[in-house]
This record gives sequence, C-alpha cells and structure tokens, in this order.
Amino acid sequence: MNDILVAGLGVMGRSIAQNMMRNGFKVAGYNRTFAVTQSLMGLENFTGYEHLEEAIASLSSPKKVFLMVPAGPVVDKMIEVIKPLLKAGDIIMDGGNSYFEDDRRRAQLVADQGIHYLAVGVSGGEMGALWGPSIMPSGPKEAYEQVAPILEKIAAQKEGQPCCTYIGPEGSGHYVKMVHNGIEYADMQLIVECYLYLKAAGLSNAQISDVFKEWNQGPMESYLLGITVKILLEKDPQSSDDLVDRIKDASSNKGTGKWTSQVALSQDVNVSLIHAAYMARLTSNLEKRNLLVPVQPSASLHVEELKKAYYLARIVAYEQGWSLYADASQRYGWNLDLAKIALIFRAGCIIQATLLNDIAKIVNGHDTLLAGFSEVVQTNLPALKKIVTEIVNGDIPMPLFMAALAYLLPFQGAGLGANLIQAQRDFFGAHTFERIDQDGSFHHEWE
Amino acid sequence: MNDILVAGLGVMGRSIAQNMMRNGFKVAGYNRTFAVTQSLMGLENFTGYEHLEEAIASLSSPKKVFLMVPAGPVVDKMIEVIKPLLKAGDIIMDGGNSYFEDDRRRAQLVADQGIHYLAVGVSGGEMGALWGPSIMPSGPKEAYEQVAPILEKIAAQKEGQPCCTYIGPEGSGHYVKMVHNGIEYADMQLIVECYLYLKAAGLSNAQISDVFKEWNQGPMESYLLGITVKILLEKDPQSSDDLVDRIKDASSNKGTGKWTSQVALSQDVNVSLIHAAYMARLTSNLEKRNLLVPVQPSASLHVEELKKAYYLARIVAYEQGWSLYADASQRYGWNLDLAKIALIFRAGCIIQATLLNDIAKIVNGHDTLLAGFSEVVQTNLPALKKIVTEIVNGDIPMPLFMAALAYLLPFQGAGLGANLIQAQRDFFGAHTFERIDQDGSFHHEWE
Repeated sequence: MNDILVAGLGVMGRSIAQNMMRNGFKVAGYNRTFAVTQSLMGLENFTGYEHLEEAIASLSSPKKVFLMVPAGPVVDKMIEVIKPLLKAGDIIMDGGNSYFEDDRRRAQLVADQGIHYLAVGVSGGEMGALWGPSIMPSGPKEAYEQVAPILEKIAAQKEGQPCCTYIGPEGSGHYVKMVHNGIEYADMQLIVECYLYLKAAGLSNAQISDVFKEWNQGPMESYLLGITVKILLEKDPQSSDDLVDRIKDASSNKGTGKWTSQVALSQDVNVSLIHAAYMARLTSNLEKRNLLVPVQPSASLHVEELKKAYYLARIVAYEQGWSLYADASQRYGWNLDLAKIALIFRAGCIIQATLLNDIAKIVNGHDTLLAGFSEVVQTNLPALKKIVTEIVNGDIPMPLFMAALAYLLPFQGAGLGANLIQAQRDFFGAHTFERIDQDGSFHHEWE
Repeated sequence: MNDILVAGLGVMGRSIAQNMMRNGFKVAGYNRTFAVTQSLMGLENFTGYEHLEEAIASLSSPKKVFLMVPAGPVVDKMIEVIKPLLKAGDIIMDGGNSYFEDDRRRAQLVADQGIHYLAVGVSGGEMGALWGPSIMPSGPKEAYEQVAPILEKIAAQKEGQPCCTYIGPEGSGHYVKMVHNGIEYADMQLIVECYLYLKAAGLSNAQISDVFKEWNQGPMESYLLGITVKILLEKDPQSSDDLVDRIKDASSNKGTGKWTSQVALSQDVNVSLIHAAYMARLTSNLEKRNLLVPVQPSASLHVEELKKAYYLARIVAYEQGWSLYADASQRYGWNLDLAKIALIFRAGCIIQATLLNDIAKIVNGHDTLLAGFSEVVQTNLPALKKIVTEIVNGDIPMPLFMAALAYLLPFQGAGLGANLIQAQRDFFGAHTFERIDQDGSFHHEWE
C-alpha cells in the first residue's frame, strides 16, 4: 500500500514527491499527462498510475491525497473527480497557491462525505520542495495529526525543529503563504533597488555581487540575497556577457503579490511596499517608458548607508506582512501564533533570513514589529533618509526605498493634516468632524 | 402630475430635489422617516408623500424615480419595493455612490418587467446638488433621452454646456464617479501636504491661506484649493483659535477611495497616489503614532517650488485616474469619451479645476495624460525633486509627493532591474525568463 498520493507532477509536485520518497514514504504518483508520471517510474518508493482510481485504490487508510496542481479551476476539477473515490476520514491536501477564500468553499464541498480538507501552504520553490520546504498546513486539527508525520519529516529542519507547524483553521495556511509571497515580492524588489543604486554608482555586476556577499555574512543574511550573489556572477552560455544583462527588463508574476495587496486593502492594512513591488512589476511591462527626457541614473557610493537603509526597508516589509497576520488572526478568529510563523520561515522558504530569529523573539512582546524594532529603526533611519535623497538627486527608480521612508515618517509623532481633510469633507459634504477638545461629531457652517 | 420622484431626502436627496424644484420640475418626495419629508412641505413644486404607492401614482408617464439613498443594501430594498409599482418603460435612477458592479445586477433585476435602470453618478456635495452638480448618467441610451431634459437642466453649466453627459452603458456612470472620488482623495491629500510643508516652514494658517489664494488665481485654480483658502481663515466659534487647529487629526472615509484602489488593482493599473491617499487616512486613525523619537518637522520656505511640485503631483493624480478610465473603456467595452469626462468635471463637482480644460484638450491626442503633459512634467520635475529632498531632510509626512516622484522616475528611460527579478524567479522557481536578444522563454541551470 502507498502512504500518500501526489496528484500533479509538475516542477513542484515532482519535487515534493521525490522529497517524500527520499524520506521513506511510499508515494503514488498521478499526472494528467501520463508521460510525466512515466518519467519518474523506477525511482525508489514511487509507483506511477495512469488512472486516478488505481492510484487512490493503492493508498492505505485514511487515504491521503496531496494536490500539487495550478491554483484555480483545476483544483475544483480534481476535487470533483477525487471526492467519489474517497470515504469518511480520508484527507485531501491542497499544496498549491490557492486563494484562501476558496478553501472554505472546497472544505464544505467534501465535508458532507466526512472527507477532511487541508489547505497547505508550501514555500521553497523547486529546491525547497525537493530538499525541504517550509510548510503551512491548516484546516481540521485532527486531520493534520494524521499527515503531520509526513509533512514534518519532509519539511526543512532548523535547529532540530521542522519548518512545518499547524497554522490554524480554514484556509489560514494558504493565507500565511500568500502573505509570505507578498513579503517575497517586496524583498526581491528591495534587492533589485540596491542593485540599481550600486549600478548607478558605477559598480559592475561582479562588484555588486561582492557587496551583497559581504552583506550576506551578518544579520542581513537571507536566501534571496544569497542567490543574487550567484546570479550576478553568472555568465551567459550564449555569449561572453553577464547573463543578467541579457535578460529582459520586464518581469511577470503569478498573482500572489496582487492578492496580498488586494486582501490588505479589504483588511484596511497598509502594505505599501508589497503594493509598490507589485506595481513595479507592472511598470516594467509598460511599452512606453520613455515619456520624459532620458536621464542616466547616478549615485555617490555610500555602501554602508545603503546597507543600513536596505535592512530598515526590509524590516518595514516584514512589519507590513506581520500586520496582516495580526489583523487576520483577529478578524477571522484564527488565533495565529505570530512567532511560530517566523520560526517556520527560517529555513526552506524563499524569504528565509536571519532577521526571522529576531522577529520570532520580539513579535509577541510588541503591538507591531516596528515597535519591537524601534531601536534598529531609529539607528538606521538617517541612512534611509540619506539614500532617498541620493535616489531623488540621481534619478534612480527605487520606489520601495521611498515607500519605506514614507511609511516611517508618520511615526515620529508629527501632525498628518487629517484635521484639514475633516474640514474639507465637512465643507463640501457636511460629513461633520471630530474635535480635539470635545467628544462627538460637529458640523460648521463654513459659508 | 409630478415629473419625478426623489426617494431619499437626506442631505444630497433634499438638495437635488430643491434643485429640480427651482428649475420648475414638479417633484414628488419620499423619505423613510416621514418627518424629513414634512420639513420640505410647502416649498414650491414639492409634494411630499408618506407612502411610496401614492408618490409613484402621482407621476406622469414614463414614471421617473430618482433614488438618493445610501449605497448598499438599501438600494436593493428600495428596488424590491418600487419594482411592482412601475410598468414597462418606466425609469429607475440610482443617484448614490453605488458600486458599479452592482448596477448590472440591478438593471437585470428590473429588466424582465421592461423597466429601465440608470446608474447616475452625482458629484458636488450638498452645494453642488443644490445649485448644480456634475452628473454622470449611464445605462440604456433611450432611457437617458427621457430624463436628459431634467438632468441637463439641474446640472452645473460651464460655458453654456451642462456638466452632464451620457457616459455609457451599464454602471459606467458610477464607475466614472468612483474614480472622480479617488482623484478627489488624492488632491485633498496633496493640499494637506502643501499645508504641512508650509506649516513646517513656519507659516501660520492665515499665511498658508494667503499662499493658496495666490495659487488659486492662475492655472492651478480648483474648488478644493478655494475652499481650503476659506477653511484656514475660519475661527472656532467656541474659542479664539483657528477652527482647523481644534479639529482632530484623524479622518474617516466613505469607501470610494478604497474602491478605486481595489478596482485599480483588479485592472492592473497603478493609482499609487489614490492608494497612498486612502492609506494616509487609515494611518491618521492609528492609535500609536509615537513609535519613534518625536521630531519637529521643518522646511525651508520654497513657495514657488512647492507650487510647481504640487501642480505636477496633481497632474499625476489625474493621469492615474484617466489611466483607469482608458483601461475600463476597453476592458468593459464602454467606449468612454475621455475628453467629455474632463469637460463635465469643470463645474459642479468636487475636483473641478482649471486643469480640466487642458486635460480635455490633450487627452484624445495622447496615449496617456503624462505623454500629453510631458512638457509641464519636464519643467516642474526639478521642483518636485527639490521638495521631496526637503521632505526627507525635514521629516515631513508627505507620502503623496513622494509617490508622485516615484511614479515619474521610471519614465526617464532608465533600467528598472526587472531583469534581476526574472533571474531570481528562474533561480528559485524555474519560472523561466525572456532575453533581450531572442524571443521565447529560457531556463538556466543556476547551480
């Protein structure tokens, strides 16, 4: 009998299946195109099936089905086909980047038959899935207990702990994964902006790689910074150029950054860096980026200030993500453990970074990450201001550094001028205003 | 017989009814709380009704019902009650700030009985509604013809033309109004930021009022700037202070700025100023704005630069709104007349401004407003850069000025670093990349 079925054997599905196999689990594999399944046949602990019926019949009870198919209608289609083949107590896991609001509906769809539905966030890309991803499972706790031995075994391990923990009910695992990706968009763009800055200051790709390598030794270490060190040194196999210089300056996306921005708006939480990172990707796809007189960006080389500014901006990105978690935890009654989320992000996932150790330490003692990091923020703020001044004078398109500073300035206690907004609204729309010296709503006859 | 029924006699409904009455139309009035209706009884051309049945029975054919009730479920409730009282050819108009996606559903709801549904955007606040608002009607063209004599008569007039024109099918009128409000959020916040800057430079409210008054003489003239001139001079009736100083620094909203930001995300259009303006309102409501060491904002007095920077930032706000119109026009097949929208905004509405004359002139000849205004943008860009530097050094919370500059910098033709994003995505997720020298998608073995 097989321990688990992995349905969908694309890059991520194949990798997670191989991870399970390596860890001694007997994996049944199914893919719509059978040739893909066939390419894995012969590997230890793997049995491929052409038909779902056989694949599911091969499973021990309770049967465990791990979907690794593209988010969207394909997931619904798979559930429709698989549901009649399962019995009460069996478990469907959705390991894709599904939208968390869809999870509730899908869980209800199979609940009438007593089938459990787990929404499982999986991060780490191809290599993470293969060697140990960060896993964010959610849904009925008792169903999680059934699959925990597999998921916690295949997850990345950090200091002896698996990077997999039960997140909460419903689609909370996919929610946590979605916001993870939002933070990922922001951090990728921040690294890009450091690269733009250093280019503007005259550094070559190799020199920028050296700078990032040095940064990556200390508290700023992160997976994304690490891979960027390597990317910048890579040569184009087809020419003698650096490969990065032959890649088109236009990036696509798969939607999770957009979702995070949309969800943040619906929750009334400010994730300006994640939003700006998504917008930066859109901007890079605009056909006409030459509307103004061309300018060659330039900058003075302030590596230490840039480093400090980047560290601070990255903290702001995490602050915005964790603000979403804190709000969602309350709003949906998920009771999320904000420290544990940081802990399981420390290995396996794309945003893994040394900073997460500090986040795990401070997050429960403070209302916001910003409050917890206020000393670092204060220390690095002058550097961020310095770099933004350089950006402005040197015409370097670095929207996230600007957004990070714009996010921080209101927290120095100065007036924001919302009193004037209230006055304007009362003037033209009789919307009333509040006073600083009395409770209640007031209307003034302005004319 | 009455010409039209106004259902809902709150601030806006009452004002629009009185506008119709003043223009010689016989108005039937209905309000859920009859006392409100009674307060208008005795006015010329007005007949109040306690019951909807009587009110609708009093109308000439085709019967015209103008809903002025709060957006949301109240509109559905009203339609449910009114529908059985109408016949084929009668017309329901929704003059509230309804969400444009709701209009289609509501139109279908009454279509089976041959009743026409018009989504009518109305802007101008209380005074606009009373003396002449800007009106954005949409829905079946033939139904619009029936109500045009009333709407075009009560609308604001500019150079002999009514600020009311048929917008397009479905909920396009509410869409145009929604984006109008989004631009309004941005322009209000930009004025607030000018006020913060001038305060930081040491000016009193009266001095700031003088500056705004001078600005308001030329091409920068706008309704919002005009009312701010007055607001800043207003004394608190309860003290000797300026009233604006006694108003709480926390502003609320009715959701149209949020909707515009949400819709823009779903359309993949960057409305960073509108988004930031909504976020600024949220930030002003945060309990803890003292996370960092308090700083007293300061600035050098650069009135001319501030003026130029504000003008440029305002252009960016309009550019973002018109980008939404252009995209929606294509996306929904609405065939919007982008110049006419500018023309009907020139009087009656909250964002009326001299700038709209220029927008109406250039919008059809260019892909974007930014392209049309490229000369002004180029001329004013150094001033915006100068002011943003001052903001940064002086710790003034002015997120929209920063967002305006961040929006413009990518249009100077420099690289945006999206090549590095593509490389990162291919590195960790095998998402492939595009090359500058060949068509197709490529994957590289990075390790």
